[in-house]
Formats: sequence, structure tokens, C-alpha cells
Amino acid sequence: MEVLRRPVIAGVGFTKITAHWKYSLRDLSSEAALKALSDAGNPKIDAIVVGNMMSGIANGQENLGSLVAESIGLSGVPSVKIEAACASGAAAVMWACLGVLSGLFNSVLVVGVEKMTDVTDKEDVSSALATAADYDYEVFFGATFPSLNAIIMRSYAKTYDLAPEDFGHLPILMHKNAVDVPHAQLRFPINMEGYLNSPIISDPLKLFDCAPIGDGAAALVIMRRDRARNSEHLIEIIGFGSATDTLAMYRREDLARLKAAELATKRALSMAGLEPKDFDIVQIHDAFSVIGYLNLEALGIVERGKAHEFIASGDADRSGALPVNPEGGLKARGHPVGATGVYQIAELALQLSDRAGSSQIENPNVGVAMNVGGTGSNVFVHILRRVE
Amino acid sequence: MEVLRRPVIAGVGFTKITAHWKYSLRDLSSEAALKALSDAGNPKIDAIVVGNMMSGIANGQENLGSLVAESIGLSGVPSVKIEAACASGAAAVMWACLGVLSGLFNSVLVVGVEKMTDVTDKEDVSSALATAADYDYEVFFGATFPSLNAIIMRSYAKTYDLAPEDFGHLPILMHKNAVDVPHAQLRFPINMEGYLNSPIISDPLKLFDCAPIGDGAAALVIMRRDRARNSEHLIEIIGFGSATDTLAMYRREDLARLKAAELATKRALSMAGLEPKDFDIVQIHDAFSVIGYLNLEALGIVERGKAHEFIASGDADRSGALPVNPEGGLKARGHPVGATGVYQIAELALQLSDRAGSSQIENPNVGVAMNVGGTGSNVFVHILRRVE
Repeated sequence: MEVLRRPVIAGVGFTKITAHWKYSLRDLSSEAALKALSDAGNPKIDAIVVGNMMSGIANGQENLGSLVAESIGLSGVPSVKIEAACASGAAAVMWACLGVLSGLFNSVLVVGVEKMTDVTDKEDVSSALATAADYDYEVFFGATFPSLNAIIMRSYAKTYDLAPEDFGHLPILMHKNAVDVPHAQLRFPINMEGYLNSPIISDPLKLFDCAPIGDGAAALVIMRRDRARNSEHLIEIIGFGSATDTLAMYRREDLARLKAAELATKRALSMAGLEPKDFDIVQIHDAFSVIGYLNLEALGIVERGKAHEFIASGDADRSGALPVNPEGGLKARGHPVGATGVYQIAELALQLSDRAGSSQIENPNVGVAMNVGGTGSNVFVHILRRVE
Repeated sequence: MEVLRRPVIAGVGFTKITAHWKYSLRDLSSEAALKALSDAGNPKIDAIVVGNMMSGIANGQENLGSLVAESIGLSGVPSVKIEAACASGAAAVMWACLGVLSGLFNSVLVVGVEKMTDVTDKEDVSSALATAADYDYEVFFGATFPSLNAIIMRSYAKTYDLAPEDFGHLPILMHKNAVDVPHAQLRFPINMEGYLNSPIISDPLKLFDCAPIGDGAAALVIMRRDRARNSEHLIEIIGFGSATDTLAMYRREDLARLKAAELATKRALSMAGLEPKDFDIVQIHDAFSVIGYLNLEALGIVERGKAHEFIASGDADRSGALPVNPEGGLKARGHPVGATGVYQIAELALQLSDRAGSSQIENPNVGVAMNVGGTGSNVFVHILRRVE
């Protein structure tokens, strides 16, 4: 990438994640977007990219490009929605970066939004989530999104001979991290006993392995580096990569790894010219505990089958050698699906500019975020760096 | 745009549009994509962009980026879905062009696909189409997508004092054009008497003002000009533009014009360095007759309120001074919503390379396509030119 055209994050904004009974898609989007615009010093916006997965089903509303532009007084500005299941947010960020790199847009506003509670339509949220899996070969036969992830968990546990406790370390850390994070959804600690005794959702998946359902929106202002005003908090996006895998799980050779996540990581590292050892902070997609572990392995941070030891060791704590999800991740910060990837990158940008408040870790320079769509069928990795 | 990086269309493919009872999203996508790849000489593909509006609701399937990549043996390649209501297809083309212009992708496969019949879910297609309008301020109160367009038609007819016959000229021409087009959905002629006697859908909108519901997929291989192999049929995309307008119609000052369409046209013309008089062929979005007329006016081809005279004069015929939709347009070629914008551009590319078969017009050099999302809330314009 030509350095002057390189995309930088100039502004960040998001809502609290919760069941927002009184807030619509419009309200959530505009709160996050206006905060990000203000944080960036209200630059002229050349295009908008909305990350969202399920508004058609859950809210009876598509055409979110137009809706979001209008909600912040920017009708007229080019605007589209990008969908890549649970990775819609990071997909929107990546295509916004491509828009900036094209030379045609100096500034692109990214808004990730999802309204999963108080849905207006006949479908329940489980049906909406299941559209991330393969309708013809999985959902038609009764599979739900959690049941598919339970199969992955079972395969992973069997491959590496893991006990139920081994999966508890990640959600326990996530809940611990979220306690003091104002925008987090589940701000209470859990312990191993609570984890082990939490109800089975789909054997062996327990309640505390699963991210909650919630509403939220996050936004970023992404600009060409040479067009962003001088600011204390510009963060460079120095690499990104994405990859797909088969939609249905039965076509994959090995359920105990995420091939698309490995490929996306390789591409992002190659663009950034970095190696996994260069990461100072990591955002992983822990929609289910096992997926969080598979993320750490695909990122090259831990050996395969050893992610639980890494989390248990304390190295992933805020004060550890390589903090993971200091805001609580999908499990405890929350997982409004199409917004999640934008939350991850927004949180990274705040960490890298020492603006993360109570969750701030010490002096990170390079951060990475992994956002996973479907059961690993579409993965996006972004690598961010403090501007020198 | 730097000339060497300029996007060119290297390959084109599409399915017939009809009620494809035996074909799934996968089947339709792969047929169109494989034809386009073959037409382009099977280059390596760096990314895929899928245009689709309603697969979540109509087919219980999101994550189409992954589905389409897998369906053609390209799992691994980065792939996302882009949604902009009925303009999803052209939105996908525009962002594919930005991807090529970014310098990161040498070749992007665009697949527009929609499966509107034999839908698997509880929703009917009317509910799915209504997600293009404003849920909170229109659909919630009982408006359907046709009823909103009927309001536009009424406003336009009143503003210019038009009679019912004035709206018949466009659908009559579209049906005439489609008769000999193999991929068209409605291959039969209609006359003014038939038009005037066709049932009222939502007064004053008649059946023959409305595009049909159908299934189909269209695909393009878009490449950097300097990476596309020498080919007889490369077509340049020399300009594109898009703009949004308010989602709900009640917030617009004038229902008898499409502001976003005017703005998108201005942007595309500015990028191409051309004027409306340079167009040799036009593809308009005639989902409803009045929208087709408003397209012609927004493109600067006719004066406001005069579109019906232009069509009635014969100038828009295949042999006329400025042919419009020689394949029959949305009205008769068909309108599988998320695929339509890709069909329009694919048809233009074939015309500009003298490969349009029975619908071929004489020696066009520059063509334009307008694709409209919602009731004019999101519009995309692409300008194509024969490579010199």
C-alpha cells in the first residue's frame, strides 16, 4: 500500500450493548455514527458502508445504506450494506479500506449495527442466526447455529482430549474483563463452578460458552492518511485479509481448525509485513468458547490444542504478555452480530491510542482483530498500528 | 482514474430469468459465474462480490459470499454480499470496481442473484420486497412496494397532466423488445388496449406497469485493464456514481423526480468526462413504468415530463436514435431484484462488443445503466465504453 493513501482510523463511536427496547436501527446507528464523526472532527464523508447481517428478517428492513445515511443527515452520500454473516462488521471495514485505497473516497464512514431484540417480524432470532449456516444441507435438517458449533466443540475436545473445565477459562476471563467496561452487556464475573453448572444448550455447549443476544452499533471514520487532520489518535490499518471456507461443515476435512481464519491471517500478516509475535493485543471472535480458541490458533499465537493453557496461564489477562479481548469479547461485551467486527476494531483503536479507559492495557503498538462469519466460512483479519 | 488500473469487463454470463423451480441459489449463481469466467478466459479471481437483496427472508440463507465462492470451487477467495435493495446488483459492480482500483485485486467476480419463487420461508415475496421501503414510517402502516410506486405515478401524472395511455408506451416497447431475447422472462408482445385493460394493482398502477417476479443470476469478471488478457470483447467502465435519498417518501420535496438518480448521474458523468448526449444506448430501471420515465429524465436524456413522448416517438426503439433496454428491461426481460443491476451491465457489455445477438443495436460506443433501490432511495449509474 502506498503510505499516503493508507487507511487510518480517525474516529470511533459505539453504543452500549444491551436489549435496547426503546432504540430502533436508526437510533442505534445514528448514536454510534455521530460519536465517530465527532471523534474524527466531523470531516466530509464520501461514502458509507453499513455492516449488518439480519435486519431484513429481524426488523423487516433492508436498504440500510439509505437508512443510515438519512439517520445522520447524510442523504445523498453513496451508501451500501455489506453482509458476511457474523463477520459483516469487519467485512464492511475491509471494503471501506478498499474504497479509501481506490483513491476515489477520502473518507468512508463504517457503521455496524444489529437489532436482535424486540424484533418486528415473525421470525425468531434463532432462525435469523441460522441463515449464517447452510440452509440446504444443515438448517433444513434441523441444525441450529449453536448445535453446529457444538459439533465443532465436540470435535476439538476429542482431538485434543480436553475436559469440560478446559473450555471454561475463556468465558471466565471474558466476564472478568467486562465488569468495568461501560459499554459491555454482561458486567458480572463468573467462576469455574458456575461455568460447569451452567445449562447445556447443545451438548457439550453450555450457556456460558455462548455469546449473548443483544442490540448495538459501532462506527469508524476511515480516511486516507494524507487527508486525515493531525490528531493525537489516528490509528493505521496496516494489513487486512479475508478468506472463505465451505458454507456447510460436512465438506471440511478437519472440524478442529478454521482454515479460512488461517488464510485470512496469512494474508493480513503479509500485507502488514509482520509476524504473530508482533501482536501486542488481540481481539478474537469468541461467539462460542471453542471458536475463540480456534481463533488464537489460527492467528499463530498458540499451538493447536493449547489455547486453553494460554488463557489459563494468565498471559491473556489485561496485564498479561498478550492481552485478549480486554473489554470482554463477544461473550461478555456482547455480540450484536453485524456490529461485532466494528466493535472489535473500534476497541483496538482506542487501546492503541491509550483511550480505552478502565480496560486500557499498557502501551500496545500493534493489534489484531479476527471476525468470523458462519461456522468459520467467512473470516476477516485486520491489523492496526499506532501511527509513529 | 489511472488508465492502466481502470476496470474493464472481461467476461459476462447469466441465466434465463423465469420461475426456476428446480434451481437453487447455488445453481443459479454457479451457472452465471461459470459462464462469465469462461467468457473471460478463466483468469485467477482475487475476490468475489455478490449482489443480492432478499436471500435471508426468501431462502433462509445469508452468508452468500461463502455460498457463491463454494458453488464454483473457489472457497478460500475473499467474498461478501452487498445489499442496496433493488440496486444490490449495481452496488456490487461499483464496489468491485473500487476493489480493482484499490490496486489490491486484479480481478473481481461479481455475481448478482435472486431466487424469488419457490421460497423456503414463511414470508411472502411482497413482504421481502417491502424491506426496500421504510419499515417504521411506511410498511408498518400497511404500505406495499407497489402502493408506494403508485403514489409516485399519481404524483408524476398530476404534475405533467398525463393520461393513462402515456404510461403504456414504455411497457409496450419493453415487451416488443423481449420477444426474441432468449434469456427474457416475458417473451410476448402487448398492445395499448391490453395495457389499458390490464388489472389495477394499486391505483393508478396497472399490472402491465409492473416488472414480474422471477429467479435469475448474472455475473461479470471485472479486471484491471493492464491485467486483462487481450480480448476482442473487453469493455471499459469509465465512470460510475451513486447517491442516496431519504428512505421514506414523505420526506422528499418532489415525488415527480428522483434526486438520488440525478446526483448519481452527475457523479458518473463527471468521472467519465462525458455528457448525456454521448450515450449511444441506455439501460433504465423500469420496475414500474413511471420509474423508467424518471430514470430517463434523471439521466438528462429527456426533459422532465416528456419521457413518454420520447418513447412514443420511436427514438428509443432498437433502431432508434437512442435505444433503451433493447433486451426488454425489467418489465419483460425480468427483474430478479438483486441480480438486475448486473443483468443491465452485462447486457450493455454485450451490446458494446457486438455480441448481443437478436437484440444487437448498431455500433454503440458508449452505454449507461441506471439501477434504482427502494423508491429512489439508493441509485447507481455505470457508464461503459468500447475499448479503443
